[in-house]
Amino acid sequence: MYSVSAYQEFFVAYLENQSIHKEPRNLYDPIHYILSLGGKRMRPVLTLMSAEIFDANYQKALPAAMAVEVFHNFSLVHDDIMDAAPLRRGHETVHEKWDTNTGILSGDAMLILAYQYFEKYEPKTFRKLAKLFSKTALEVCEGQQWDVDFETRNNVTIPEYLKMIEFKTAVLVAAAMKMGAIIAKTSKTNAKLIYDFGLNLGIAFQLQDDYLDAFGDPATFGKQVGGDIIENKKTYLYLKALEFSNEKQKEQLVALFSSQPETVTPKIEQVKQIFTESGASNATQEAIETYTLLAFATLDKLNITPDKKELLRAFGKNLMERKV
Amino acid sequence: MYSVSAYQEFFVAYLENQSIHKEPRNLYDPIHYILSLGGKRMRPVLTLMSAEIFDANYQKALPAAMAVEVFHNFSLVHDDIMDAAPLRRGHETVHEKWDTNTGILSGDAMLILAYQYFEKYEPKTFRKLAKLFSKTALEVCEGQQWDVDFETRNNVTIPEYLKMIEFKTAVLVAAAMKMGAIIAKTSKTNAKLIYDFGLNLGIAFQLQDDYLDAFGDPATFGKQVGGDIIENKKTYLYLKALEFSNEKQKEQLVALFSSQPETVTPKIEQVKQIFTESGASNATQEAIETYTLLAFATLDKLNITPDKKELLRAFGKNLMERKV
Repeated sequence: MYSVSAYQEFFVAYLENQSIHKEPRNLYDPIHYILSLGGKRMRPVLTLMSAEIFDANYQKALPAAMAVEVFHNFSLVHDDIMDAAPLRRGHETVHEKWDTNTGILSGDAMLILAYQYFEKYEPKTFRKLAKLFSKTALEVCEGQQWDVDFETRNNVTIPEYLKMIEFKTAVLVAAAMKMGAIIAKTSKTNAKLIYDFGLNLGIAFQLQDDYLDAFGDPATFGKQVGGDIIENKKTYLYLKALEFSNEKQKEQLVALFSSQPETVTPKIEQVKQIFTESGASNATQEAIETYTLLAFATLDKLNITPDKKELLRAFGKNLMERKV
Repeated sequence: MYSVSAYQEFFVAYLENQSIHKEPRNLYDPIHYILSLGGKRMRPVLTLMSAEIFDANYQKALPAAMAVEVFHNFSLVHDDIMDAAPLRRGHETVHEKWDTNTGILSGDAMLILAYQYFEKYEPKTFRKLAKLFSKTALEVCEGQQWDVDFETRNNVTIPEYLKMIEFKTAVLVAAAMKMGAIIAKTSKTNAKLIYDFGLNLGIAFQLQDDYLDAFGDPATFGKQVGGDIIENKKTYLYLKALEFSNEKQKEQLVALFSSQPETVTPKIEQVKQIFTESGASNATQEAIETYTLLAFATLDKLNITPDKKELLRAFGKNLMERKV
């Protein structure tokens, strides 16, 4: 086993070795662009780690890791169009740098390219990987649709919200890890357990994203702190605050989340105060802890050596202690 | 072997039996909608026919035929967004009936759903089908990108145009037929030949589309006659007219294709006159004939019984004599 940063390097080297600069340029240049913007490469790294956890060489997992990363970036390109987002990782989004049509078509090509990376595997593995991938990709679309639907609904429940982030975010983390298990040809039980580990870790990861968006340190948090509050996003924090707060607070919160003030700071401060006073902030931290512990509990059941369990646990801890 | 209309019925019965009405409704309703709008179902019918040509029961080919049809409709949904088209088969396009974001996301889900239909096949066949499908789907995206690029280019050559329609239209017809061959487990030679048959037929089909768009009978042609001329589309007719016409005609044609007059009839009539007088109209009919004959020539080499060759020939002839 290598360190997380070593797997990142292996993956980036593999990615940079792909010849994506093809004709027609207007189709492939945006693909090269978005894949070069960087990011933590968390999902592909998990595929490589997972393969080695189950005693396969990480090199065998590189094409699958690439499929996962290409798919993740496909979803970013299309989501950014839907959200009319101007920036991604501090750079122009594809539809801003080119145009919406380019974003749609290049995104489509990326989804297909992702499937093509599975062609490196023999038929049985190919089928298993592509099947898991399709199921996951469809769930990501469903998650995105729920997210869109929730924007115009005022009765979103906590279980609905958890299902949405499970589909939109966590299933891809889970599938990334299961792909490593499939490539390593480990037992079905191990494959199922590593999926569950990834799923719970993915949910914890997204809940922490919600938390950091409001309570992150502006000095270390990559995005604008309070972005979700400005956009009136019904996050876990918001839904828990509605659940816990008294009638007066509730009225105030709903009113704040119906407003689009030009000066955002007072709104952010007021909302954060309600998040804290209502107990929503604590409840969110507890939920993050719960899902992280659920992930760690599946580790205990895995049939791998203790040092490897410790490695996965360290990865999970590290992820949950992040400030970015 | 059955008749073409019988295969259409078999396919539509299979399609209508799929449970596409799932949650979230805003994701799956548009998919159900576009798939229910009808159409000739030419591509899936070719998959079924091809399977039976190579001695497999058409029923074995139904999931692959469905994948082809779902993919074709995915490309319509996304193309209609890019073209800002209000109507498809006489009904509102998905992005008009819902919105652009819905069109993007439902389209994405359709592309994934198409792959999932291959899961009905065992690993080796699955891999072959999915591999052919990915290659084809990527070519369709490339063809669409060339088509977009050509809009703003004034130096498009005939070979470039032919490559564009090959990728945008013909490869899917070819792949639809090869899928039948793969499912029937016929020889590689047969699979290659039926692909070439479909490819040449597909090019002839698209050239005829260009021709009918200008010279079709308004009484039988489904769309507005002259639509391509109104939109200044550089079709085969236009490129051949540029090639053949004298300096004066050429200037006139370029001027006409830079205009967007409110009253379209005079423009359409003038352009059609140039198409006819320059010989572009005849050249297009000859090209349709050439590609049809190329398709029929591959039939001769196929290792199947003469009656089946006759059936494919009849299908091709029928397609080329269409007025719609």
